[in-house]
Amino acid sequence: MLDSLFKPRAVALIGASTKELSIGNVIIKNLQRYNFTGQIYPINPKAPDIRGIKAYPTIYDVPGEVDVAHIVIPPQMVPQAVEDCGKKGVKNVIINTAGFKEMGTEGEALQNDFVERGKKYGVRIFGPNCQGIINTDPAYKAYCDFTFTYPKPGHISIVAQSGGVGAVIMQNLYDLDVGMRMYASNGNACDISIPEIIRYWGNDDETRVILLYVESLDDPKYFMDVAYEVAAKKPILAMNAGRTEEGAKAATSHTGGLAGGKATDLIFKKTGILAFNDAQEMCQAAVAFASQPIPKGNRVGMITNTGGPAIIATDELVDGGCEIPALSEKAISILKKTMFEAASINNPIDVVATAGAPQFRSAVDVMMDEEHIDSVYINFVTPPFVDCEAVAREFAEVSKQKRKPIICNYMTDKAQWTETTKILKDGGIPCYDFPGTAAKALVALCRYDALRSREKGQIKYFEDCSKREVENIITNVKDSGRNILSAQEVYNILDAYKIPSAGWKIASDIAGAVSAAEEIGFPVVIKADSPEVIHKSDVGGVAVNLKNADEVKSKAGEMKNKFSVKELNFFIQKYHSGGKELIIGAKQEAGLGHLLMFGMGGIYVEILKDVSFELAPVTTVEAMELLSSIKMAKLLKGFRGEKGVYIDGAVEIIERLSQLVTENPSIKELDLNPLLAFEDRIIVVDARISI
Amino acid sequence: MLDSLFKPRAVALIGASTKELSIGNVIIKNLQRYNFTGQIYPINPKAPDIRGIKAYPTIYDVPGEVDVAHIVIPPQMVPQAVEDCGKKGVKNVIINTAGFKEMGTEGEALQNDFVERGKKYGVRIFGPNCQGIINTDPAYKAYCDFTFTYPKPGHISIVAQSGGVGAVIMQNLYDLDVGMRMYASNGNACDISIPEIIRYWGNDDETRVILLYVESLDDPKYFMDVAYEVAAKKPILAMNAGRTEEGAKAATSHTGGLAGGKATDLIFKKTGILAFNDAQEMCQAAVAFASQPIPKGNRVGMITNTGGPAIIATDELVDGGCEIPALSEKAISILKKTMFEAASINNPIDVVATAGAPQFRSAVDVMMDEEHIDSVYINFVTPPFVDCEAVAREFAEVSKQKRKPIICNYMTDKAQWTETTKILKDGGIPCYDFPGTAAKALVALCRYDALRSREKGQIKYFEDCSKREVENIITNVKDSGRNILSAQEVYNILDAYKIPSAGWKIASDIAGAVSAAEEIGFPVVIKADSPEVIHKSDVGGVAVNLKNADEVKSKAGEMKNKFSVKELNFFIQKYHSGGKELIIGAKQEAGLGHLLMFGMGGIYVEILKDVSFELAPVTTVEAMELLSSIKMAKLLKGFRGEKGVYIDGAVEIIERLSQLVTENPSIKELDLNPLLAFEDRIIVVDARISI
Repeated sequence: MLDSLFKPRAVALIGASTKELSIGNVIIKNLQRYNFTGQIYPINPKAPDIRGIKAYPTIYDVPGEVDVAHIVIPPQMVPQAVEDCGKKGVKNVIINTAGFKEMGTEGEALQNDFVERGKKYGVRIFGPNCQGIINTDPAYKAYCDFTFTYPKPGHISIVAQSGGVGAVIMQNLYDLDVGMRMYASNGNACDISIPEIIRYWGNDDETRVILLYVESLDDPKYFMDVAYEVAAKKPILAMNAGRTEEGAKAATSHTGGLAGGKATDLIFKKTGILAFNDAQEMCQAAVAFASQPIPKGNRVGMITNTGGPAIIATDELVDGGCEIPALSEKAISILKKTMFEAASINNPIDVVATAGAPQFRSAVDVMMDEEHIDSVYINFVTPPFVDCEAVAREFAEVSKQKRKPIICNYMTDKAQWTETTKILKDGGIPCYDFPGTAAKALVALCRYDALRSREKGQIKYFEDCSKREVENIITNVKDSGRNILSAQEVYNILDAYKIPSAGWKIASDIAGAVSAAEEIGFPVVIKADSPEVIHKSDVGGVAVNLKNADEVKSKAGEMKNKFSVKELNFFIQKYHSGGKELIIGAKQEAGLGHLLMFGMGGIYVEILKDVSFELAPVTTVEAMELLSSIKMAKLLKGFRGEKGVYIDGAVEIIERLSQLVTENPSIKELDLNPLLAFEDRIIVVDARISI
Repeated sequence: MLDSLFKPRAVALIGASTKELSIGNVIIKNLQRYNFTGQIYPINPKAPDIRGIKAYPTIYDVPGEVDVAHIVIPPQMVPQAVEDCGKKGVKNVIINTAGFKEMGTEGEALQNDFVERGKKYGVRIFGPNCQGIINTDPAYKAYCDFTFTYPKPGHISIVAQSGGVGAVIMQNLYDLDVGMRMYASNGNACDISIPEIIRYWGNDDETRVILLYVESLDDPKYFMDVAYEVAAKKPILAMNAGRTEEGAKAATSHTGGLAGGKATDLIFKKTGILAFNDAQEMCQAAVAFASQPIPKGNRVGMITNTGGPAIIATDELVDGGCEIPALSEKAISILKKTMFEAASINNPIDVVATAGAPQFRSAVDVMMDEEHIDSVYINFVTPPFVDCEAVAREFAEVSKQKRKPIICNYMTDKAQWTETTKILKDGGIPCYDFPGTAAKALVALCRYDALRSREKGQIKYFEDCSKREVENIITNVKDSGRNILSAQEVYNILDAYKIPSAGWKIASDIAGAVSAAEEIGFPVVIKADSPEVIHKSDVGGVAVNLKNADEVKSKAGEMKNKFSVKELNFFIQKYHSGGKELIIGAKQEAGLGHLLMFGMGGIYVEILKDVSFELAPVTTVEAMELLSSIKMAKLLKGFRGEKGVYIDGAVEIIERLSQLVTENPSIKELDLNPLLAFEDRIIVVDARISI
């Protein structure tokens, strides 16, 4: 429990300073200005007081208990300070000082030092190289942070790996006049971690929405556990920076965490966290999440008193996957009575610029009553010839019914329309400055509904797989000092998990190769099989489409002559042609498990990069999504008279592969490339595994 | 010249009202509040004065000349009011009243009526169904509009087809504390048009940037002429709503204009107008355009005092096509001396949170001196322990050198950091609230540089084409009352423009078909050729890959039996197979010319919708872009050892087709589908033309 951190009764500051432009002064100032309800203990060996508050020479001199001690002294002095805090019985330290793990090995050693000391005394450590925490709760008003935004109480809590981004988000909500609950930016996160903070807020009733900014995850599995638990209780909105290669590089060098980029996005999706690419978009969405119910579908009713913004909003909503369905006969007949003659009775309802409270109210009521409308989008420009306050009162009244979410693109000069603005705000209606911005916020609500109500399916367990056999093979490979498996080992592993591959045999000499080919049936492929022959196809170690015994004999002979290696076997496999090429792969992500990849082979993957990803283990639904989310999925399902491929077979291969890598985590990379997909079967024709 | 509209010395208001909540009162109030420097003449048959200003019973009673007369009376009375204005010698009327063309035929008749009367007396008409104009010039302060934002003088002029969107843009610039030059929203635009306004601002020195919002274009050709002319002089930033099908439908029903959606975007690109999908993004970009120079490339130098925002900015810049190149040895050696030890000396330069004016200044100077850096992006969070005003002064000083554009993501509470904010503002540095927003504004500057410096090439004229022959064929088709051309006519047209097609002949009987096939050489295709046989392939009117005379005889015989039509000819064509399928098409857009389309046939166009568009006539460069901008372009150029197709041939076909449709505007649709593309030749194997 992080109560003593977020709800401190006494805060000390080791390194408190009389200099205005110093962190050791700013933190005291923030606590004072924000009316912290507890005790403040500046620690300074010389000054009798800081900013009018009695200072103490050491932490030991502090008369009472200390919940949180900020440490802002130079890095070399931090380990001793943590030790002192331990001895004093301080519950948490917030180490604002930088110069630790993020600076290289020397700093890392210092960090490890104070982490050890903290553990020894049971002092929890927040940071180092961090801003701190804020709690807006009037009972605490804890501003243990050196930033500058003084948020109002509210229901959005923010945790950001980067203090800069955290500050941007907090300031933006403040500028939007939207309250915040708690804030945390924990820098290097050597002890108290982001998942721990999220879990704490999961149990905080006043936190209705959690905003998260990450650049990488230190412990992806722990993060997932917490995310599953908390996302089931309240919306978590998150942004993961580093989506471009350059951005990812910057993120990694900035944080040194494990999972970044794609893996983090997959974790978000799998655990039910709503992902954003843009911080502003996330803030704007948060405003809607904090006050509006989640829609029960993607069908939007639009009301507008000006044409153009309705078009822009339509573009944005449709792009975001929303529908704008036609109104029912009943709705139209009501509107025909209540609207002005010039109004456009449709969806959008254009009430026209002269519309007043009765027209707007009727339009909103109609949208609320339409069974096939899930949310209401309003464009409201404030005409100087309309009683806008009366209009706003109607919106507020309907919003308080909490039947369906209402979002408003509110086009006005807030400095003039102060009362109208206040009515909308008090009514809890999220207001935006642009039609596109408002539409994006509504799209976020709908995306969240889809994410939350998505049927995730079950992970199928195949009992006919032999984990034991795979373990034996891998142990053998390890024992022989290799990390790349031979063809025989690879296909034995596939066989052990009943992943269908082209029939194969091993022969130790040319005659054996011929009789193996005859048993398999022509045409065949033969491959030189030896740990010493790598990049086989580049060096003439592969011969395809051999149609008879003579061809096999001749090619095997050539290989025998070419590769003068100690032990040369021949790997003989049935040669298949035709079908559609698929690629299925698995790659281990540190601390997380395996990332599965699916794509269509050849030009589709090479030119279009038409691949999809999912985290193992996958459910049947996820395996199907992996397949159906590539751009060329239609081609697999059958297109324009051409028959599709054996989809169920492909899904089962993905599931078996998922079980294989999950049960055998020593597999680092596995590539089935290609598989050939036919109408009635799918078979692996080439595969590689490394451990 | 629109001087008398935008720089009025006297404004009358026909329909002036004493009622506060009426347009007839609000316009007077706006003129008063905005300190209009000219005369105001309220026209009201009864009231002696309106808002303290002497009113006149009719426009004839006004003592002086009138430059602009607002008309806000009911629609039925508007034609007479325009006539009255004409007789009085009023130069312009702004008809705010709605209920004309946008409401159907009755309204359209009224509109046509007053348009005629306006022409008769030489009164220019602005509107109807519109807001009006604003000129912030201190010499005029003309607020002839019923909106509510009172903009400061500046250098951005705004013209919006939708008053709602115009108001949003104007208000946003006002909220950003950015000045505006002139504003116009002309609704139905029955006389004074958007291009006319843009041309006027093209000659207005104080307008440095033009912002445009359109939903459709009434006269696309005129628009293009003006856009070419004005975009050569100053940046035009534009948003075209209706990018989704639903949005486009809403836009069309809202405006009834001709060119919308894709065609408008192509016009923007061709004429050098910078297009935006989002109004907020356009506003934010305008701020940068109004004060910063245009970069001479896409290479960005980034300076930051906080890590996370630099990652977000990197993502956004790279996504937008910018590069963030490494710094030179020289730059690094300078920075090693000037930066704090914890700083990261690289691009981005992380000066760290404690950096003050000397560190920031050195970093900016280094970026200005780097020859391979074209613009500077700064993340500046205002740490409470840093002299931020000193930092801002350095930025302002460098910005005034106007060497390279500077953009700042300024993360602060502006209510506290007032002086720092003022220094940045006075220094003309565009400041944004989010790293992504700032990055997008810089991307817009770079996109504009690319658009402006793009080599457009020349339109090639092929002298060996016979326009005459095509005209003759089309005249014949028209004379016979058809609008679909026969195969023979289609291929004759292609031959007339030397567009290579599979060899063909016409035969009137079976024997002729056989000998034609023998002359062409087997294999051949034969098609039943008669105006009465439509959807040939569905009804058995096409037989492909006929390998010898017997097959031709048999298939031709079958067709003869099947189609008992008056005149049945056989169209015999060489049968080609292999190669890559291409599609090239042309479709006439009302009032504009032809839209050319290029794509790869089959699944690429069907599943991936992998097509590109351009407006005819195209230059050689544009024809090449049409080809290279499809996703699968790599496949055409040769990929992974597979040879590419005859690119120059494809480009020439596009150019010849462009000349064909441009010279023969009666062609409505032309489809070459497919062409077969080989390494050394490209030939049309099927084609359709309609007029």
